[in-house]
Amino acid sequence: MKAIILKRSEELGGTNYFEDTELEIPKLEQEKDLLIEVKGISVNPVDIKTSRKNLEEQDYRVLGWDAAGVVKEIGKAVTKFKVGDEVFYAGDYTRSGSNSQYQLVDERIVAKKPEQLSMAESAALPLTTLTAWEALFDRLKITEKDRGKKILIINGAGGVGSAAIQLAKHAGLEVITTASRIETLEWVNKMGADRVINHRQSLSEELKKIGVKELPYILCLYNPNIYWEEMAKVIEAQGQICSIVDADRPVDLSLLKNKSVTFSWEFMFTRSMYQTEDMGRQGEILAEIAALYDQRILNSTMTKHMHPIDAENIEDAHKLVGSGKMIGKLVLTGW
Amino acid sequence: MKAIILKRSEELGGTNYFEDTELEIPKLEQEKDLLIEVKGISVNPVDIKTSRKNLEEQDYRVLGWDAAGVVKEIGKAVTKFKVGDEVFYAGDYTRSGSNSQYQLVDERIVAKKPEQLSMAESAALPLTTLTAWEALFDRLKITEKDRGKKILIINGAGGVGSAAIQLAKHAGLEVITTASRIETLEWVNKMGADRVINHRQSLSEELKKIGVKELPYILCLYNPNIYWEEMAKVIEAQGQICSIVDADRPVDLSLLKNKSVTFSWEFMFTRSMYQTEDMGRQGEILAEIAALYDQRILNSTMTKHMHPIDAENIEDAHKLVGSGKMIGKLVLTGW
Repeated sequence: MKAIILKRSEELGGTNYFEDTELEIPKLEQEKDLLIEVKGISVNPVDIKTSRKNLEEQDYRVLGWDAAGVVKEIGKAVTKFKVGDEVFYAGDYTRSGSNSQYQLVDERIVAKKPEQLSMAESAALPLTTLTAWEALFDRLKITEKDRGKKILIINGAGGVGSAAIQLAKHAGLEVITTASRIETLEWVNKMGADRVINHRQSLSEELKKIGVKELPYILCLYNPNIYWEEMAKVIEAQGQICSIVDADRPVDLSLLKNKSVTFSWEFMFTRSMYQTEDMGRQGEILAEIAALYDQRILNSTMTKHMHPIDAENIEDAHKLVGSGKMIGKLVLTGW
Repeated sequence: MKAIILKRSEELGGTNYFEDTELEIPKLEQEKDLLIEVKGISVNPVDIKTSRKNLEEQDYRVLGWDAAGVVKEIGKAVTKFKVGDEVFYAGDYTRSGSNSQYQLVDERIVAKKPEQLSMAESAALPLTTLTAWEALFDRLKITEKDRGKKILIINGAGGVGSAAIQLAKHAGLEVITTASRIETLEWVNKMGADRVINHRQSLSEELKKIGVKELPYILCLYNPNIYWEEMAKVIEAQGQICSIVDADRPVDLSLLKNKSVTFSWEFMFTRSMYQTEDMGRQGEILAEIAALYDQRILNSTMTKHMHPIDAENIEDAHKLVGSGKMIGKLVLTGW
């Protein structure tokens, strides 16, 4: 099968690069495995981060943590899928990724793709929508009783932000998000944001301008160190902050103490990485997400479509996503 | 009225000391105020911390954030209490404390004291039991569905720990707590702990000895900096940590990321300090606590009783509580 692998080059000064190659089609490894023929993939910040990690020269890694495709084989304990099903999933960070024609994935983290969406549109969704969903409903634990409450989504124009704005609106929240360019401002408005402030200015000052002093929920989709003091200022007493981006230095946690604030991490790979008891919940969430797209309650966040899936395009895609300027999601299809 | 005030002495090198004095009986300030005749008080770590703060020489402060007493006057918007009611409460950190014969308190953070307990026993309860309750049920959000799950309570023998062990057992959790001395070990067993490990050793090694690798809940009742790395090791994926003691330096929050862990602060004064919409919940919790004591589901944590309430005894009480060796709660009664 075709595969795009990440390798280390001594000639390039020890940096990594992508290479088109042929690998064996993987054989089912676990009882709940599906063998998927990958039709579409997407590139996420986790790919960029992983591509910068140290690799030994003899090693390689298949990246890619978003896919839409067709079930070709099923493990003997598989109960939810049959050969021929069209599915989508983000996958498991500890296993080989989706940048190959065939991939193994545990059925518990897979769902049927939205019927109304193409393979390309479907491939844009899993990682970002799952992250946004888990952040809002599993970490911040937003429920029906929170309708009408305010949430600040820092950096709303990226992949997770675009999904989070829509999901938060669907949950009945008032969504204040941040953007700093005309293009991103237009995009977050299109995603349904109620108010937009500029994250290059002081968040508390920007919120004051729109008459908001404090809010009960903050979803931070950017380096939390940068916004830590401002988040501590504008979070309500007993409020909750969730972040998906790693802190690059220690934080002054005590700033949150007097308000009894809760801080949560959301990492979409936790369930599969730690094989949690509720790992199957991820497949269920994906199925709920598919239904919301089919009902057109959520809108596709795909903004860029490249073809085919090869090393050159993956390299270009990494440059775009790595620039931090990407709006919405970038998808690649075809081999 | 008699009052014990904290004052600053230049003669004592700028340190603070307690003094017996006479103050005017306070007049009702707010519509929901109760004027209480204080019968019993307790001393908590928050008193020690406050007693070490800088005071101007001309200033003084009345400490004390635990009281049992009798309602003497009620504000015009008071609905829950009448003159003569016997009540208990922790009070509001931003107002004058309970180390005086009369004190004002907002009715929303007050409840009738347990009928089966004396004023002394009742005065031992509010701050610590409220803290333990809010930590377990408002921050860690433990519910009926968590019965049988494990919680690690670090430093179980203090005031909050003694209440937390009992409340966690009542909620059906399996309680693992820590102690390092024979006396504290005996005490936490008496409070109902299922297993006890030594917090002077590595928590992960100690847990391994009793066959526990990870657990979903940790309640940290000691400087979280000291246990941060060990807590990150033993917390389960998607687990929750709550701390009540301030961190004295920044923490490496990223240690909790891969497991999508949630960290919460519990500070018992948050509701009254920020006048939260749900401030009245604290009075309701106190009423539930009183019922649990009356039903003998919870046992008094009072271990030391001093008489009368005067500067000398308060000074001695501060030494005991400040030593960090105190087991259970110290109470003072009578004027």
